[in-house]
Parts: sequence; structure tokens; C-alpha cells
Amino acid sequence: MVMESGVDAGRNPRERYRAQVRDEVKRHAWEQIAANGVTALSLNAIAKEMGMTGPALYRYFAGRDELITALIRDAYRSLADTVRAAHEAGTTAVALAAVIREWALSDPQRYLLIYGTPVPGYHAPDDITAISDEILAVLLEVCGTAEETPQSPFDVFLGMDRRWAGKLLASSPTVHRALSFWTRLQGVLSLELSGHLTPMGFDPGLLLAEEVADL
Amino acid sequence: MVMESGVDAGRNPRERYRAQVRDEVKRHAWEQIAANGVTALSLNAIAKEMGMTGPALYRYFAGRDELITALIRDAYRSLADTVRAAHEAGTTAVALAAVIREWALSDPQRYLLIYGTPVPGYHAPDDITAISDEILAVLLEVCGTAEETPQSPFDVFLGMDRRWAGKLLASSPTVHRALSFWTRLQGVLSLELSGHLTPMGFDPGLLLAEEVADL
Repeated sequence: MVMESGVDAGRNPRERYRAQVRDEVKRHAWEQIAANGVTALSLNAIAKEMGMTGPALYRYFAGRDELITALIRDAYRSLADTVRAAHEAGTTAVALAAVIREWALSDPQRYLLIYGTPVPGYHAPDDITAISDEILAVLLEVCGTAEETPQSPFDVFLGMDRRWAGKLLASSPTVHRALSFWTRLQGVLSLELSGHLTPMGFDPGLLLAEEVADL
Repeated sequence: MVMESGVDAGRNPRERYRAQVRDEVKRHAWEQIAANGVTALSLNAIAKEMGMTGPALYRYFAGRDELITALIRDAYRSLADTVRAAHEAGTTAVALAAVIREWALSDPQRYLLIYGTPVPGYHAPDDITAISDEILAVLLEVCGTAEETPQSPFDVFLGMDRRWAGKLLASSPTVHRALSFWTRLQGVLSLELSGHLTPMGFDPGLLLAEEVADL
């Protein structure tokens, strides 16, 4: 879990206490999500567990959506740190996929909060996408290649419409490879975490390794 | 929606009435799922909306899990029928992927109930897998190929451990191709339906077509 109370530099006791309470609220929230699903998240129930009144808790999180946003931000932060650390250690695409799978399996609720069924009525704020852009930037470096000629109709399309990838200066074949990498990784993980691969009896890691090996 | 009251052959008025009430309960359940998520599903709330008492409703569904199972069974039935109809019309793998995507987009909640975040505490009964085996059988036919020599370590593994695919008599390369097809399809659909492709501004159908074209 990403701890708000973990970094104390330049904070006074009141701010540290606030961070500790927010961390504790988030710990209870993850337990509720595992037990009943994210849509059943209740700030009043968390307040009760913590021996606080509802209104007192609302001083730490203004509402359900702010709490969900904090959880999603922590989850993305943890994923982005994991991905960047692997990249700095000189990972290949196949090894990176295995690292991300391990990250997802170590805490499925955290993965599912980002990539699972959307929470009805919840909309993530724009700054969340800044963290996902960090992840994308690493993917584009890992999937970069010498061969820069657009090969397929989708490559050509990606070259024309650079709304999202433009600022990252990657070539269309690289963007296409990064998208394929991400698609296949998400395919294995979503099937594995929703239990659809269990009856098949093989190691999903083998499937994943081959899916991302020949991009 | 798959209607229990749609097939009346050999049923008496009491059975028809029962099927109609069950259909109405399921309609309310889908509305609740869209509004609040599947974990917030409440038989008592549905009973209230239908002007019934809770105990009266429980004569039609013995509990939340039985209702969820009925919804999952309907969703699988609809997907299996869609897949089989495409196969009988002589579909290619690329066209089949597009048909399944259309099915998912036409009713995202139905897709997400099968492939999205698992419902905490819910376990599907074994007979549900019989319907998913129907879908697998079509995939294996569509992904069948003349080239039957195991190519990769995963192919060889699939050839040795035939716990799940054994009865379907497909070769390991065909099973591997069907798994890749399904993985990539699920990857695109889960990213698309959880909103992760929206900011990228391209047509996910283009990505999907290329992902399943070169299996």
C-alpha cells in the first residue's frame, strides 16, 4: 500500500496525523472492497469501524468519490513505480509483462479497481491520466524498435491521428507494438483474475510470455 | 435479454406466470446492476419495486446467488448463440472478433458480469462451464489450421496436459491459437469497456482486427 504518512519531510504534527488517519481510512476501504466490492464502499461504515462519527470522517475525505480517487491514485502510483523500476533495471518486454502480472496477482483488488468493471457513477479526475502516461512512456521505450516503417492500416492511422501519442514522439510501429503489448497483457490478466483460466489447468504465465514475445 | 417466458411449449398457465415473474425480476436486476453495480443487488429492493413482499419474491429466486447465476446463464446463452450463428454463417476469426465486440458493446453490463470484476462471495455452479465449452468449441473450429506441428514450449505443454481441451480433440497449435484469439479479444474489450482506450481517440475495432488477424 502507498502510504501518505510515509513521507514526513516538511510536515508538521497536524499534517502527519491527517496523513495517518487517511491511510487508516484507505486500509479499511480496501478491506471493504475485498469483502463486498467497490460499489458497496461506505464512508459511514468505515467511520463506525474507526470509532468516529460520519461527519468527522468527512473532514478527511469529502465523499465516496474522493476516497475512490485516492485509492485509484495509489494503485496507479504503485504500478507506475513497479514499471519504472523494471525499466531502469533494463527489462525486456517479456520480463516486464511478468513483473506487471506479479504486481496484479499480489493484490487483485488493486488491479481490478483500475482495470475491472467501472464503478457506476464514478468519474476519475483528469490528473489520474498523468500517472497512466508515465506507464505509457515506459511501454513505448520498451517496445521501441529500429524498424520504423508503418506496416499496417492501423499503423498508418496512428501516424495520422496523434492526439494521444503525439507528445511522446514515438513512431507509429512503436506505438502499435506498445498497444499490442498492453492489450495482450490485459487479456491474460483479466481472464486470469476473473477466474476464466482456472479450469484450464495451465500456467497463465506461459501464455503471457508467448503472447508478448513475438510483437 | 434471454426470456424464460419466451418458450411456452408444454407449459401450463402457472409455469408461464412463473417464467414471466422471473423475467421481470431479472429486468429489474439488470437495471440495479447498471445503476449501482452487481454487488449492490438487493432482492428486497426488487420486491419493493414490483410491489411484492421479500418472502414472496424468494419463491422465484432462493437468494442473491441464484439470481446472479440466472443472469450469468442468460448472458452466456446469448453469447454462445451469437458465436454459433456467426460460425454457421461461415465467419473468419477477424469477423468473429468483431461480432463478439458488437455483442459486448450492445450491453456492457452483460459482458462485464461474465468477464469483469468477480462478485465477492459468489461462486458459479459447474453447469455454467458447459455453455462456455460451447463457445470454446466454435473458437477451436474457427482457429483450426492445417499446420499441426507444435511450435512453441507452450504448444508442447498444451499437448501434454489436456485436462480441459482433451475431449475437444483439437491439436495443440489450434488450442494455442484459440487461446491467443480469446486473450487478445478480451484484452481489447476489457480496456475499451473500462474506458482506458477512450482518451486515445482511435477506433478499438481497428486494433482488435489487427490483433486477431495474424494468429
